[in-house]
Amino acid sequence: MPRSSLSTATSLLKRKLGSALVFTDPDTCYAASFDSGRMSFLPHAVIKPRQREDVGVVLALANRYGVPVTPRGRGTTLMGSATPREGGWVLDLLKLNRIRIDAEAGFAHVQAGAVIAKIQDAAAARGWFYPPDPSSKAYCTIGGNVACNSGGMHGGKYGVTRDFIIALKGFLPTGEYVEWGTATRKFAAGFNLRDLWIGGEGMLGVVTDAVLRLIPQPAARWTLLTSFPDEVSAFRAARALFKARVQPAICEFLDRHSVQCAESAMGTTIFPGQPGRPVVLLELAGSAAEVKETKKTVLAWAKVHALGHRTARTRDEAESLWAVRRKCSGAMFQMGDGKLNEDVTVPLATYEKFARFLDRLRKSSGLAIPTFGHLGDGNLHVNIMYHKADPDACRRAETAVKQLMEKVVELGGAISGEHGIGLAKTPFLRLQHSAAEIGAMQAIKRALDPQGILNPGKMFEVFETWKCPKVDAAFPWDHK
Amino acid sequence: MPRSSLSTATSLLKRKLGSALVFTDPDTCYAASFDSGRMSFLPHAVIKPRQREDVGVVLALANRYGVPVTPRGRGTTLMGSATPREGGWVLDLLKLNRIRIDAEAGFAHVQAGAVIAKIQDAAAARGWFYPPDPSSKAYCTIGGNVACNSGGMHGGKYGVTRDFIIALKGFLPTGEYVEWGTATRKFAAGFNLRDLWIGGEGMLGVVTDAVLRLIPQPAARWTLLTSFPDEVSAFRAARALFKARVQPAICEFLDRHSVQCAESAMGTTIFPGQPGRPVVLLELAGSAAEVKETKKTVLAWAKVHALGHRTARTRDEAESLWAVRRKCSGAMFQMGDGKLNEDVTVPLATYEKFARFLDRLRKSSGLAIPTFGHLGDGNLHVNIMYHKADPDACRRAETAVKQLMEKVVELGGAISGEHGIGLAKTPFLRLQHSAAEIGAMQAIKRALDPQGILNPGKMFEVFETWKCPKVDAAFPWDHK
Repeated sequence: MPRSSLSTATSLLKRKLGSALVFTDPDTCYAASFDSGRMSFLPHAVIKPRQREDVGVVLALANRYGVPVTPRGRGTTLMGSATPREGGWVLDLLKLNRIRIDAEAGFAHVQAGAVIAKIQDAAAARGWFYPPDPSSKAYCTIGGNVACNSGGMHGGKYGVTRDFIIALKGFLPTGEYVEWGTATRKFAAGFNLRDLWIGGEGMLGVVTDAVLRLIPQPAARWTLLTSFPDEVSAFRAARALFKARVQPAICEFLDRHSVQCAESAMGTTIFPGQPGRPVVLLELAGSAAEVKETKKTVLAWAKVHALGHRTARTRDEAESLWAVRRKCSGAMFQMGDGKLNEDVTVPLATYEKFARFLDRLRKSSGLAIPTFGHLGDGNLHVNIMYHKADPDACRRAETAVKQLMEKVVELGGAISGEHGIGLAKTPFLRLQHSAAEIGAMQAIKRALDPQGILNPGKMFEVFETWKCPKVDAAFPWDHK
Repeated sequence: MPRSSLSTATSLLKRKLGSALVFTDPDTCYAASFDSGRMSFLPHAVIKPRQREDVGVVLALANRYGVPVTPRGRGTTLMGSATPREGGWVLDLLKLNRIRIDAEAGFAHVQAGAVIAKIQDAAAARGWFYPPDPSSKAYCTIGGNVACNSGGMHGGKYGVTRDFIIALKGFLPTGEYVEWGTATRKFAAGFNLRDLWIGGEGMLGVVTDAVLRLIPQPAARWTLLTSFPDEVSAFRAARALFKARVQPAICEFLDRHSVQCAESAMGTTIFPGQPGRPVVLLELAGSAAEVKETKKTVLAWAKVHALGHRTARTRDEAESLWAVRRKCSGAMFQMGDGKLNEDVTVPLATYEKFARFLDRLRKSSGLAIPTFGHLGDGNLHVNIMYHKADPDACRRAETAVKQLMEKVVELGGAISGEHGIGLAKTPFLRLQHSAAEIGAMQAIKRALDPQGILNPGKMFEVFETWKCPKVDAAFPWDHK
């Protein structure tokens, strides 16, 4: 769009909202120019609404002048979903951050900028639990979680963000205020645009408020760490556990490469005398009676299937087991300063096949590919590590990621389980979806956003992130 | 559309599909002209596909010739959603009825025409449970359940159809084949059209296949019947139970008018010496330990809050308690041969207010309005009874239903919790949704169905069902 009409629109916006909410200074614009994906595109202005109605004003004006608008929470996404690819305005929703727990109904009434960990804390204080927990939960917001239908470690038993959204409020791309659903557990009146917004990556509307469903806070938790001779036996063991109808609240897997990272970071081996073995970290949660009952089944299972196992008797001991999981991600950067973190999902029945494929991929690419993830739902984080300064390694990483995506689709899986498409996964959307499917998505985009102003350049336009220079930035949520 | 081009299209369809799948005889057309809503509109032909691809052929041809197509399962809907309002073709999906249980992953792979009870039975045989259970579950199909996002008695604890759909396959209104989601628990690739189809009332696409999430079959169940002095105290007691963090698998309420119906049908009082008292029927489900633990809490609660309570010690005894719930619906026809069955949903905090409103509505309308429903999710079935031959009673029923809907929206509730809009609720859609909301829905409809051929005349066009003559038909799922 012409620079002059962009300036006119920004001036008009300042007049309407007051200049205290509209930032055009270089520091603020630079900070809003990238997210955790570290690809920088400068916006013309950053708007920080203080009340819901401000969002409508921004969008109505953006429509009139054709200004691109990129909504943004904390920007913890790795996919570039919150970067203003086409400039224009960044709509920063962090100031809309109210949280209210309806302890009787078991609902949380939250604004888009509310941080997940704060929602969980507020719920826990009233005896309730909000399960979806991306690893950046201490920083990321519910608005962002709705936009990319975030998951986390609890997905296998409890589900993802979508499974906890009761109602949404916000604005259509045209600036019209809308509400999808009421604060009730059942709603069957009219087309389901609530769920169309969930996972819509901020391209079909801007969420300002959400009603979340909570579940009773589990009275008891129990943690068990198990090790296995190799990945295939770890996967086989997990399948045997599920076959016994055990649904762990958490079932985290680390392959031997991830374990080696964690062990070198900790300076000790997880199981004495068994360095570099794949581990599965289990958490049971529920009523005291339920956990006690299931514990027996799980211990019997561990004795048969695991090489080693260790239970946590205290909260501190459980924490030390969890440290393993947290250490591995950062330590991976020993293997390369470049990382393609792909959150693919594969069907349970293909776990072993997928493990063997990853071994072949490591050999053919000559790259380190530590993999960890959530066995309860098949959502595995495949980390392709490479050295950015080595052009050959970059090419091999690019080939490896393409082969990975093709394999995942061939196995009947998903190219993204919880990160979404953003910019980073755009080259692979057509592997997952047919022309008819993408055509339907684009028709809906045009129907709701006729000017094409909301988060443009994402999802459908192919963008090769590995060719895009990365900003050198450190975030508090980096696993380092 | 001109009759001649309709005939041409039907002839062409017969040639493409073979005439064994295309029925134009008066009996078949009449049977497909109405659903449980009993409003009859004759189609030109009824098509009974035998394989998935047939559906695509039908829709592609319908688009070319502009033929209205109304998809249909068993037609148990009370809303007229499956009646071919604008004639054309009825697409009867009952023959696509395969069911396959993936016992390892805990998924059911089903075709649209699969009957809910059969899915439940197949799942139970492998140790799994599919919770959504409309009262017509012995007859209704998963295709219809997806179309109107059906609920049932288990909604409070487990959720509704939407909460158990992993993936859908089917055809866009244009006849293009699409798949939304994979057979995995996480999927975040592209806009969420899966959930847009859920509750789309067969207007945005035709579902041919679904992957359903199952949960482990509860090892133990326990049933308790409780009675209360009046509706307000029953509601207050239910709220106290939820406050104690008890989530019954089922929490069914019958007001005193429904109880009187049931008692007169059974020829006995539910609690000896306490005729005509509102009752709440509870079922706990879970692991043996969990049920045992919660039972204590519930019994202590019943002693404080209930007038009377009775537990079931055997499966037969539990069945006899459930008989109360089943008897009430049919017995209501003593109070009038006309019934407006409204499945409204109100927030938990407004239960008592709503009970008082219903008492006022009974007085002002002079009509019997027995009410029962699901307290776990606030989905109450308000049955406005009247005599069809009495024009004054008809007018009072019409006024009462309008006042009911206005009240529900005023209380922050939903005009439909599980039936959907169809034809019957169209006069009230604009109470629930703003012009912007309805505009967005219609824009999506136009984007996906440019010829407007799929289930036309529903949802958005106001249709006053009480002015429409009803067909005299008996269905096996009638509560009589």
